[in-house]
Amino acid sequence: MINVAILGFGVVGSGTAALITENADVIKNKIGEEVYVKRILDLRDFPDSPFADRITHDINDIVADPEISIVCELIGGLHPAYEFTVAAMNAGKSVVTSNKEIVATFGVELLEIAARNGVHYMFEAAVGGGIPVLRPLAEDVAVVNAIERVDGILNGTTNYILTQMKENGASFADALSGAQKNGYAEADPSADIEGKDTCRKICILGAIAFGKLVDVSSVSTVGITGVTLSDIENAEKMGYSVKLIGSAFKDAEGRIVELVRPCFVPHGTPLAPVSDVFNGISVRGNYVGDVMFYGRGAGSEPTASAVASDVARIAGGAAVAVAPWTPAADNEVGDPSAVPALYYVCADTDSVIDVEKHFGAIGKLVTDNGSVCIVLREKVTLSELKEKIAAAGSSFAVSSVIEVLG
Amino acid sequence: MINVAILGFGVVGSGTAALITENADVIKNKIGEEVYVKRILDLRDFPDSPFADRITHDINDIVADPEISIVCELIGGLHPAYEFTVAAMNAGKSVVTSNKEIVATFGVELLEIAARNGVHYMFEAAVGGGIPVLRPLAEDVAVVNAIERVDGILNGTTNYILTQMKENGASFADALSGAQKNGYAEADPSADIEGKDTCRKICILGAIAFGKLVDVSSVSTVGITGVTLSDIENAEKMGYSVKLIGSAFKDAEGRIVELVRPCFVPHGTPLAPVSDVFNGISVRGNYVGDVMFYGRGAGSEPTASAVASDVARIAGGAAVAVAPWTPAADNEVGDPSAVPALYYVCADTDSVIDVEKHFGAIGKLVTDNGSVCIVLREKVTLSELKEKIAAAGSSFAVSSVIEVLG
Repeated sequence: MINVAILGFGVVGSGTAALITENADVIKNKIGEEVYVKRILDLRDFPDSPFADRITHDINDIVADPEISIVCELIGGLHPAYEFTVAAMNAGKSVVTSNKEIVATFGVELLEIAARNGVHYMFEAAVGGGIPVLRPLAEDVAVVNAIERVDGILNGTTNYILTQMKENGASFADALSGAQKNGYAEADPSADIEGKDTCRKICILGAIAFGKLVDVSSVSTVGITGVTLSDIENAEKMGYSVKLIGSAFKDAEGRIVELVRPCFVPHGTPLAPVSDVFNGISVRGNYVGDVMFYGRGAGSEPTASAVASDVARIAGGAAVAVAPWTPAADNEVGDPSAVPALYYVCADTDSVIDVEKHFGAIGKLVTDNGSVCIVLREKVTLSELKEKIAAAGSSFAVSSVIEVLG
Repeated sequence: MINVAILGFGVVGSGTAALITENADVIKNKIGEEVYVKRILDLRDFPDSPFADRITHDINDIVADPEISIVCELIGGLHPAYEFTVAAMNAGKSVVTSNKEIVATFGVELLEIAARNGVHYMFEAAVGGGIPVLRPLAEDVAVVNAIERVDGILNGTTNYILTQMKENGASFADALSGAQKNGYAEADPSADIEGKDTCRKICILGAIAFGKLVDVSSVSTVGITGVTLSDIENAEKMGYSVKLIGSAFKDAEGRIVELVRPCFVPHGTPLAPVSDVFNGISVRGNYVGDVMFYGRGAGSEPTASAVASDVARIAGGAAVAVAPWTPAADNEVGDPSAVPALYYVCADTDSVIDVEKHFGAIGKLVTDNGSVCIVLREKVTLSELKEKIAAAGSSFAVSSVIEVLG
């Protein structure tokens, strides 16, 4: 029997305890070992829970228990999650987490501590909720392909808001308050809507794809607070959906580029129909081409599935751990604004001819009430785009610039 | 160094040899071992190939070579693929294949022979081309979830034909000959268009999901030859896309049900936008909910990626093999026609009132030129549906009955 402890009996912790208990037979049939939740750490008591007698308030009841071999850190935040994780691994226990903040911040060090102690540190649930994506990316795709890029819709809250704006014609503010009312956004939604959550996740995906962890603070991160309803309506008219995309890729010089920003995603490409709270992660390898992984990116039960799959993997005696990461050095990180891309540009102007003169061939065009919105046909860097906009003169008053993915 | 042999230097075999050579550094960095293609078996010579000096016409050059530890069977068909596979495993070599026919036919026995010899038999490339799906299904999803169902668009040729019919208004015959002209369909397309290829793949997915291999000959298999352009046009009007779907699920009595048939797939669900030669596989687990895997379902390079990922897995010393299967007994297999489902029914008739009287609440309705096409709102079994159609009388001349997925 493999004894497991759960740190944090919140949404994910209670789902994980329920899964391991309810699906005990499934797990035992598959890995040949019984997995049992022996202890749950929380500040609170849960007298009505079937797990009431296993609750403890003292981390030492877990760290010092030699029968517990796997610890699920489902507290969230950096502290005390970091201290508990280190203590557990130094005590010879493997640690599984859904905590993207700690992995994006301390991943290099925690993987090193795991390796030093001969234990596992696994975090499938930190990206894409229940979607199996980190392990297939690492062990199936990246093991035999040079990864060219990873693009993901990685945050359910912002995707829900953008979907509501599109489907109901809601403003950003109304869609956000609707999301809060439905429990899809927190009272303080800033980590979601400003793109920080997506930033942490793309840093983790980038580290799996390229072996180097880019510091979250150096990743250009733009959220969805500036996306207007007319951007979304124009996108649909032109054949795109607006999505918050985290991307990680290599530039022409082989440097790793990571960024988070709203994008126009072309209809007919696999990320475009990913709606509501769902997540989708697209991976391009030099042989496999584009593959995409899709599912529920959050929620108690899907996230518990990913946590439990890590637990089962360790309990079943997996030899393959997450490969160690190194921090990306400054000269290994490229500048996204120097990478040519297609752009959507919307401006108030009274002359369509000006636009074509200054921007060259235009792929798509929408005009409405004196505003003109275009999608460029040729890729330019952001600084080239800014020069074009400046050259167009003061009568071309730009209201939106949004990258077109692909 | 791990020495590999490739059997069959066709589309997949040549792609696999190219990948292992071109991406040698990627593989070595990831698994810590060099992988080398030592021998290639083919009836032909390839004097202009960079692999010319490694071609052999004699299987014994491979089976008797103690330096070769992994054999990639990329010949296709049942014989001599079966004999070569058995000989290689009995000689202590692991075997990797993209051959769905042999896995669906002899999978139980070949997994048993692998286990007896302490070697691997792996076949990620047999389903979904380059998409990592069998391993994530087995090792991430099914290991901790009770699998409720698997539904897949598993054949690129038929999906390309259906996409062409929808997008260009082509008849089935014209779309098929276009597919043949573009190299997306074989000169003899029957295995694809009659659903046999999809049948083999859903049997493999069902065995991974449920541990039991259902005999292909007992799987109800309907291809796309009966799908008309007006079915496709009506589907779009009603909010569906027509797709050839292989499904595996448990019925109310816990029996495994597997079938292949064209379906109306609701817009907004993840399989609906899977177009052209792409594949998509949707999996539902009791905790994870719906996850979907998407990518190129065929082609030299994507399929080579899946073959090579199996090779790398074995070369890297994976302990986890494919779990053994048992054949599904007759009383473990359920009858799909007894499972309630929604249906689309199209008929020539002169009275709309008759339809509502006989079929009850109707979800969607299209009428055109004396034909009436409906989507039922309540699930019925196929025999209940047949009774309703018979009761509607001879003036209700049914031209199409298509299941609605979900």
